[in-house]
Amino acid sequence: MFSQTDFVHMERALALARRGMYTTDPNPRVGCVLVKNDEVIGEGYTQPAGQDHAEIRALKDARSRGHDLRGATAYVTLEPCSHFGRTPPCANALIDAQVERVIAAMEDPNPQVSGRGLSMLRDAGIEVRCGLLEHEARELNIGFVSRMTRGRPWVRMKVAASLDGRTGLPSGESQWITGEAARADGHAWRARASAILTGIGTVKEDNPRMTVRAVDTPRQPRRVLIDSQLDVPPEAQILAGAPTLIFCGNLDERHAERAEALRARGAEIVQMANASGKVDLPAMLKALGERGVNELHVEAGYKLNGSLLREGCVDELLVYLAPSLLGMDSMSMFNLVAPSSLAGRTQLRFHGVDRIGDDLRILARFAPPEASATPEATDASH
Amino acid sequence: MFSQTDFVHMERALALARRGMYTTDPNPRVGCVLVKNDEVIGEGYTQPAGQDHAEIRALKDARSRGHDLRGATAYVTLEPCSHFGRTPPCANALIDAQVERVIAAMEDPNPQVSGRGLSMLRDAGIEVRCGLLEHEARELNIGFVSRMTRGRPWVRMKVAASLDGRTGLPSGESQWITGEAARADGHAWRARASAILTGIGTVKEDNPRMTVRAVDTPRQPRRVLIDSQLDVPPEAQILAGAPTLIFCGNLDERHAERAEALRARGAEIVQMANASGKVDLPAMLKALGERGVNELHVEAGYKLNGSLLREGCVDELLVYLAPSLLGMDSMSMFNLVAPSSLAGRTQLRFHGVDRIGDDLRILARFAPPEASATPEATDASH
Repeated sequence: MFSQTDFVHMERALALARRGMYTTDPNPRVGCVLVKNDEVIGEGYTQPAGQDHAEIRALKDARSRGHDLRGATAYVTLEPCSHFGRTPPCANALIDAQVERVIAAMEDPNPQVSGRGLSMLRDAGIEVRCGLLEHEARELNIGFVSRMTRGRPWVRMKVAASLDGRTGLPSGESQWITGEAARADGHAWRARASAILTGIGTVKEDNPRMTVRAVDTPRQPRRVLIDSQLDVPPEAQILAGAPTLIFCGNLDERHAERAEALRARGAEIVQMANASGKVDLPAMLKALGERGVNELHVEAGYKLNGSLLREGCVDELLVYLAPSLLGMDSMSMFNLVAPSSLAGRTQLRFHGVDRIGDDLRILARFAPPEASATPEATDASH
Repeated sequence: MFSQTDFVHMERALALARRGMYTTDPNPRVGCVLVKNDEVIGEGYTQPAGQDHAEIRALKDARSRGHDLRGATAYVTLEPCSHFGRTPPCANALIDAQVERVIAAMEDPNPQVSGRGLSMLRDAGIEVRCGLLEHEARELNIGFVSRMTRGRPWVRMKVAASLDGRTGLPSGESQWITGEAARADGHAWRARASAILTGIGTVKEDNPRMTVRAVDTPRQPRRVLIDSQLDVPPEAQILAGAPTLIFCGNLDERHAERAEALRARGAEIVQMANASGKVDLPAMLKALGERGVNELHVEAGYKLNGSLLREGCVDELLVYLAPSLLGMDSMSMFNLVAPSSLAGRTQLRFHGVDRIGDDLRILARFAPPEASATPEATDASH
């Protein structure tokens, strides 16, 4: 159905899309390649929100180079949009340019508009095909797909542990179990996320900034703190800089002063309690989805990690394993209780394994948004 | 120094050597390729102890095919032996055959004879070079090298665990955490070992046979049991079949009857107590080395695992990680106590990582017999 040439151009479009890894948020990362008479005449990828989408950039690129788009083929990593948002619909732009063919990697995952852009193109007499390198395109926008299809972010939980599965000494010492390369890699994963989440336990123990520092990024992810009783000290580093979003549970009058002090530090406080007065984690995910969070990066302690896992709020584990042993009295990864039999154990599947410096990086997934034919494929963009 | 052709022939010699993976014990796995006028004229690998070494097999092979060895090059994965053992020295046979060149992957690791075989060849006017694919040759005979250089086996400790580092439920249920492919792979590692070691705890809990079953093997490894007080029941499966070697600690009169019952089951009992009356593990390794054990495969519980680790009796961890979580109250891999600071942690290095079925196989090493330039290389022979 697709030719070798088609694959080459779509691979290029995916590579362009990856250039938007840290900037397109909350929009998807999309790339576009325009080809005419076997020649690439225009390229583009999605610009920061409110600016040009990939198709528009590619059309402008081709025109600036003096090309006529008539008879061209457009390779796009996502179905061209059909609606007026902050920018006019890309489908219209392709129709106006009189391209001959459009090849898309995947349909728009938003069930409300899925297929409409492709229909518009077909109705205009353009030859349309979809599904080329779809798996790769989905992986690239796994968070956007999650938000569109499930109304919640793709949640990636990062853990650094020793080979015997321990994240820190009984004393709490945990810096650093893994090496510098793994820490930098971890920051690259932070950078691609829309938001970074941690818990009050980690803030009290480590007072982390939860920013991206070890790699260059044009944008810092939003920081999210789960702090049921607003125990975070106003001077905590996580409150410095851009506003941090704090989810809390049931509060009473004595919390009013704390809340005021935190707001004075720029924090936004959202009360979202479950029946036991703690933060309702699934509801929090929904709220983050509504705020446009595609990928949520979690770096927390074993307690919050365990709560998120128990409440089905984790899609993927990003585990860095160091070649060391810390001993059985050291800290565990997750506050999970053993099942009564092995049949009841928490089951994952390994999605990717790589060596990062002297350490291992293991990606393990719970339920993928859909079955994948190539579970080995990992996103190689960072 | 070596040509591309040399590499090709030595790779072939290594492949031949691997055919002896399960049979040459306690001798090293050695392969030999004879080449004349760019043509392979003879091949061989070491036969079971007492029978032909690789060089002799290759010479016989060449002669049976009507070839004259004069002017030939011999590729051998280990320095030809220079002494009369159960077979005459291979160096003499190569000299008698009037080969022109000998290329060896590595010298004999036995410091008593190392280099002598090569010297004999040189003295006879044969061109001799050594060191081609030496790393691979050493890996193939890592146990033999260990025994020759350190007087003790290469100790490989196998553990099957969940991603959160747990080997079984609090109830003891541990069959099966990993999948069928990993279990078969584990049996292939058992099969290549000279001996399989376990402890009385595992025998009491699981009553294992500790034999190779999931893969075909022409030879069952010796079984070794650490049982300080001779608590193994005479009807235990580990005593069935070939004689099992039991190491015990301090005994008194009340043990005499037990010992008698175990001997009646074919067991050999070796008393080897340390100051606290338990089995002296380093001394046990030395004793196993004296008995010709090259590779010792350990499958034990977290207590014996911890003791072996603490006493420096482990060279390599063979960890199968399953894509599951068992919870923090489940069983740990090793009975090790956390160090007081991270600087004091047990340090390893990852030697190889592979996916085996749905699981991961991680080889991690403590101190290699020597620094390796290619730590990624793993033995691909099983």
